[in-house]
Amino acid sequence: MPRFPDFSIPAMVETPAVCIDIERMEANIRRMSTGLASQGVAFRPHVKSHKSLQVARRQIEAGAVGLTTATIGEAEVFVNGGFDNVFIAYPLWLTAAKAARIAAMLKKARVAIGVSSLDVAQHLVTLAAVLEGLELLIEVDSGEKRTGIVDPHDAVAIADVLTAAGYALTGVFTHGGHSYAGIDAVAEAAEDESRTLSATVAALHDAGYDLTTLSAGSTPTASTPMAGITEERPGTFVFGDRQQVALGAHPAESVALYVVATVVQSSPEQFILDAGGKVFTKDSPKTVEGFGALPHYPQAVVEKLYDHHAVVATRGGAYPAVGERVAVIPNHVCPVSNLTNEFIIVDPAGVEIDRWPVDAAIRNR
Amino acid sequence: MPRFPDFSIPAMVETPAVCIDIERMEANIRRMSTGLASQGVAFRPHVKSHKSLQVARRQIEAGAVGLTTATIGEAEVFVNGGFDNVFIAYPLWLTAAKAARIAAMLKKARVAIGVSSLDVAQHLVTLAAVLEGLELLIEVDSGEKRTGIVDPHDAVAIADVLTAAGYALTGVFTHGGHSYAGIDAVAEAAEDESRTLSATVAALHDAGYDLTTLSAGSTPTASTPMAGITEERPGTFVFGDRQQVALGAHPAESVALYVVATVVQSSPEQFILDAGGKVFTKDSPKTVEGFGALPHYPQAVVEKLYDHHAVVATRGGAYPAVGERVAVIPNHVCPVSNLTNEFIIVDPAGVEIDRWPVDAAIRNR
Repeated sequence: MPRFPDFSIPAMVETPAVCIDIERMEANIRRMSTGLASQGVAFRPHVKSHKSLQVARRQIEAGAVGLTTATIGEAEVFVNGGFDNVFIAYPLWLTAAKAARIAAMLKKARVAIGVSSLDVAQHLVTLAAVLEGLELLIEVDSGEKRTGIVDPHDAVAIADVLTAAGYALTGVFTHGGHSYAGIDAVAEAAEDESRTLSATVAALHDAGYDLTTLSAGSTPTASTPMAGITEERPGTFVFGDRQQVALGAHPAESVALYVVATVVQSSPEQFILDAGGKVFTKDSPKTVEGFGALPHYPQAVVEKLYDHHAVVATRGGAYPAVGERVAVIPNHVCPVSNLTNEFIIVDPAGVEIDRWPVDAAIRNR
Repeated sequence: MPRFPDFSIPAMVETPAVCIDIERMEANIRRMSTGLASQGVAFRPHVKSHKSLQVARRQIEAGAVGLTTATIGEAEVFVNGGFDNVFIAYPLWLTAAKAARIAAMLKKARVAIGVSSLDVAQHLVTLAAVLEGLELLIEVDSGEKRTGIVDPHDAVAIADVLTAAGYALTGVFTHGGHSYAGIDAVAEAAEDESRTLSATVAALHDAGYDLTTLSAGSTPTASTPMAGITEERPGTFVFGDRQQVALGAHPAESVALYVVATVVQSSPEQFILDAGGKVFTKDSPKTVEGFGALPHYPQAVVEKLYDHHAVVATRGGAYPAVGERVAVIPNHVCPVSNLTNEFIIVDPAGVEIDRWPVDAAIRNR
């Protein structure tokens, strides 16, 4: 088991609680920010991992050029919270109501969205009059097989449609999410991001379009941005989680977020926590065993999650008493942030120093 | 594939949206309520599946004796919303702060909680002075291997401790959650509930304690309560979901909740929806394939969920165009309700007639 921090349990916190070690979090932000700056790559962190104005402020202070969001609702929270540069890295299909929400944001901030296909581009043409000032980036599928174009020439067709309608096309972007397949996949995914974005920009250049933003994503690939990439959009790095550690993308000792849960039943074979799928979610990547890691009970495996119970097998190791509170490191931190109203902010000794609202929790649209 | 309703898509709803067919929901409540009433079994529905005051009101109007909740936070929402009888069916480990919250509720409502071990009972002794009027039910493990006592004689030790401290012990309860293993497990789990609760009450009777509430749980087992059971606490039945249909516990044509998502990319092999794990959650019971069912695309399989994307394999079937909105029936409805701020209430023709807040969303403690 990786050497996760020996997290302390805040004295008065009620469980289940989502705690953030602020020094580790700030170190994570600094490490990513300075790492990208040293390579001349812009830092545009994804807020879906934290959904918090307080965290985003620290990211901007550390040099982020703007924020990335997944939904319009998330973007609204941050624009209304004073952030003036957001990229909704999603192939939005805009209804009139959604277009009006974007138009409202454009009065206060630079707003960009993704365009992943000619269908989406043609639909945007019908909305050009209300979306003046909106910036667009063409999404490229760099191997994840999710969204975006595969053939660079499709980008030219999209660019023709969008620019004819008066839109500003500012770049291309991708998410090398196939890096999550395992530690051996990360370097290749980073290369795929670089190669496919560069090929798309080259095809656009040949057609007379000169785009300067080549934006790549994913915490694993952001650690080693490849040639040509001008911007990275990592999210999870801010806290780290078991999956990122397993992928070699985050140092185990720098994980900053943990859940504190109370033991409600205990035996030599298993113990039960007062936190289940409605806290941890059931994200279960192949790279890790079970649904979370317990730094103080390294042999224990979170074998099963119900909505409000975790069943932890002791596997012959030590086990806590009923009433004891334990720290658990989630498999995947993004959906965990989404399932709480507040973060408990602690210092490295586990002393609570603040509480921050999770401003954009469950803003799914 | 089961014959799910041919859900209509509300005209103006923004996606992703969680929609409830109100007529089907009300029919589900009536069916469960009258089924239990005909057997003389009290109906205490679990609110964790809907977290909505509006839904709970309809359950009480249909004859529910009170509500079941999983957390204190959920109970507070319903007590503050005017409900006067709640059972927190959970082995709470009460801190002083949590005990004070329960004490506050006791001024307005009957409140019961679960006691799953002698450890919990002994801890409650220290809080007896502040918890006057609190009712306690002993939790019995009927085969799920999660929480509760296994040996009926342990109930006597717990009863001795609790009554000596002045607590009112009102019953025993269990959750036959091992019914979720598959359709063949349901009848046996229901029998296990009856057998173990009856044995516990008999042991308590021999020791001089006469308890009248034998409360069982789970939607699958509630459909056929067995001898001796006096109360059922089903939750999921109110909406139904793929898992309940697969277990034979809910008629496919009576599923009442569906997610509406927009297609953001499409090809003959797969299409992508604007809703992922942050809407559907990654609950993936062995009894169903993939992460949701699409009634209008019966061959399609939701193969993969990211935070904000669903990847749907067409498997050679029809596929929607980009921009089309589709209905998806979740695997497990409880965590889906927990991930939205509002339900879109529709009539059977898909016409939106109301919006209800999800009052207790993410109230995890």
